Amino acid sequence: MDHQSARLRAPIIVDALQFNKPERARFLEWQKGRVGCVHVTLAIWESARETLSAIGEWNRLLENNADLIALATTADEIEAIAASGRTAIVYGFQDTSPFEDDIELIEIFHKLGVRIAQLTYNVQNRIASGCWEPDENGVSQFFGRNVIAEMNRLGMLIDVSHCTERSSRDAIEYSSRPIAITHANPSAFVGTDIELNRRNKSTELIKRLAERNGVLGLSMYPKIMRDGSNCTLETFTEMVAWTVETIGVDAVGIGTDFYDGWPVSEIKWWRAGRWARESAVPIKGFSSWPDWFKSPVDFPALIEALEKRGFSSEEVAKIAGGNWVRLFRESFSPLQ
Amino acid sequence: MDHQSARLRAPIIVDALQFNKPERARFLEWQKGRVGCVHVTLAIWESARETLSAIGEWNRLLENNADLIALATTADEIEAIAASGRTAIVYGFQDTSPFEDDIELIEIFHKLGVRIAQLTYNVQNRIASGCWEPDENGVSQFFGRNVIAEMNRLGMLIDVSHCTERSSRDAIEYSSRPIAITHANPSAFVGTDIELNRRNKSTELIKRLAERNGVLGLSMYPKIMRDGSNCTLETFTEMVAWTVETIGVDAVGIGTDFYDGWPVSEIKWWRAGRWARESAVPIKGFSSWPDWFKSPVDFPALIEALEKRGFSSEEVAKIAGGNWVRLFRESFSPLQ
Repeated sequence: MDHQSARLRAPIIVDALQFNKPERARFLEWQKGRVGCVHVTLAIWESARETLSAIGEWNRLLENNADLIALATTADEIEAIAASGRTAIVYGFQDTSPFEDDIELIEIFHKLGVRIAQLTYNVQNRIASGCWEPDENGVSQFFGRNVIAEMNRLGMLIDVSHCTERSSRDAIEYSSRPIAITHANPSAFVGTDIELNRRNKSTELIKRLAERNGVLGLSMYPKIMRDGSNCTLETFTEMVAWTVETIGVDAVGIGTDFYDGWPVSEIKWWRAGRWARESAVPIKGFSSWPDWFKSPVDFPALIEALEKRGFSSEEVAKIAGGNWVRLFRESFSPLQ
Repeated sequence: MDHQSARLRAPIIVDALQFNKPERARFLEWQKGRVGCVHVTLAIWESARETLSAIGEWNRLLENNADLIALATTADEIEAIAASGRTAIVYGFQDTSPFEDDIELIEIFHKLGVRIAQLTYNVQNRIASGCWEPDENGVSQFFGRNVIAEMNRLGMLIDVSHCTERSSRDAIEYSSRPIAITHANPSAFVGTDIELNRRNKSTELIKRLAERNGVLGLSMYPKIMRDGSNCTLETFTEMVAWTVETIGVDAVGIGTDFYDGWPVSEIKWWRAGRWARESAVPIKGFSSWPDWFKSPVDFPALIEALEKRGFSSEEVAKIAGGNWVRLFRESFSPLQ
């Protein structure tokens, strides 16, 4: 059975966040893992100008790897690309830095294909506040609310994975459309004795996300999983089951937060950008991914484990990617 | 007879260059003058980032004046917008400054709707050299030729109106697709005793432009017309006839170089950008437009004068805009 015919019979797999150094080795892993769609990160601290170059780099990658990947700006495109045996790429930002202070730039980046933007990455910015901040600040009442309204108008999905609880809740309430937590776990299941506890989300928050038709992407990033790198596949599927029970099967997906291909020096950029000379947290190198998820090649085994856990094939299809495709369909077009 | 029914029966009018402060007063003039399409200038010395804001400004103008104007990125869109009684806007640059030093930015701006770029505005840049330079420098052999090849690939029309003769000739030869001189006059007709003689083009150059299926836009900008602001409508139509005789009726159009709405202080930006603290030429204020072309409202009278001069209705249709629509049709799509 070749990859393509296997894929046509299997549920679509959507990974709601990966943050790799973009290169062909990753695209080949996606093919091997039958990944139909990946939301990729083009910017965290980059300025508008730098982000244009990041988009240019991706445009060339798309051209030079057209046998493996293609840009998707609608849910229909995602389905068509996945059905062709390739991986649909959704352009996204992990911080709103590319918008700078200019409301007009959101439309510019939407025209360039960007469909998801996280309001902030870990720290406070003009729009919202991040999970590293000690204060529970919310979405700013001027630029923040305008950005949410503009993203709603254009069809750019709001992501709050790295935001504070209050900023996340504000975004859910202020947004006229469903929003996403593309990559985080439920704090109540994982526990608070993990390294990045503040990245995970309260039960109250994820319930409200689901009530408003949003989706939560569960992540195998070791620093936010129960037992870290030693988290077993059974514990992960138990977290999936707990979350489905808590917020419903239509609101749960996968967002691995997987990354590969970077030198360790890259970590400083993620942690400190240009806003600090050093990382506030000592840089100890990359986390070790769990044995059962060394790369996206392992996606089919995860899907199999969900089936064994007792989810129906319909439920597995929703969790594996169907819920994300549904949310993307509701999110990527301009408001009428 | 209302505007729309008049326009449906009349030839499409295309103005291959205007450089106004963009505002509704201009769009109303275009409607009154039955102008079906205008190539507007979004950048001369602007950086990539600044140009994003210029595009943002225009995107809002399009939204807020949708009764009068709409963006066109193909010849079919130009025809449809003109037929609806509105004016089609073609986004363009008068210098390649928005591309900075980055070959990828050409595709970025093409995706944002830009369809025409002049290689340089008056002075030497990374890509070509301009008509103010004493030396007859050509297109640069590295970045310049790459930019031309990339514009050819994407479907962005090359304009050399303000380039040196040699840069213009190089662009014609290096380009695999026809190019444009959107706004300049034939030096042999106008004479060399005008203020901006070096803006006009040699007979040899415009013949070669036409041989390669390009189009020349004749301009009523006083500083490049015979007799300056005192140039009569008869002299202008004589120039049209001379040019048609010299390079053929398929290669002649109109590119007024009309501008309005700017404060006099804006002239310094055009003449000196950020590359000089003062204009090299004393700023004496704006030129006075000729009596018969005080604004684009006077386009129908110009068309009428061409008819009276003895051009057939087919010839008038080509000169008024048909040649530009043909060139735009051949120019605005990616190479297959």
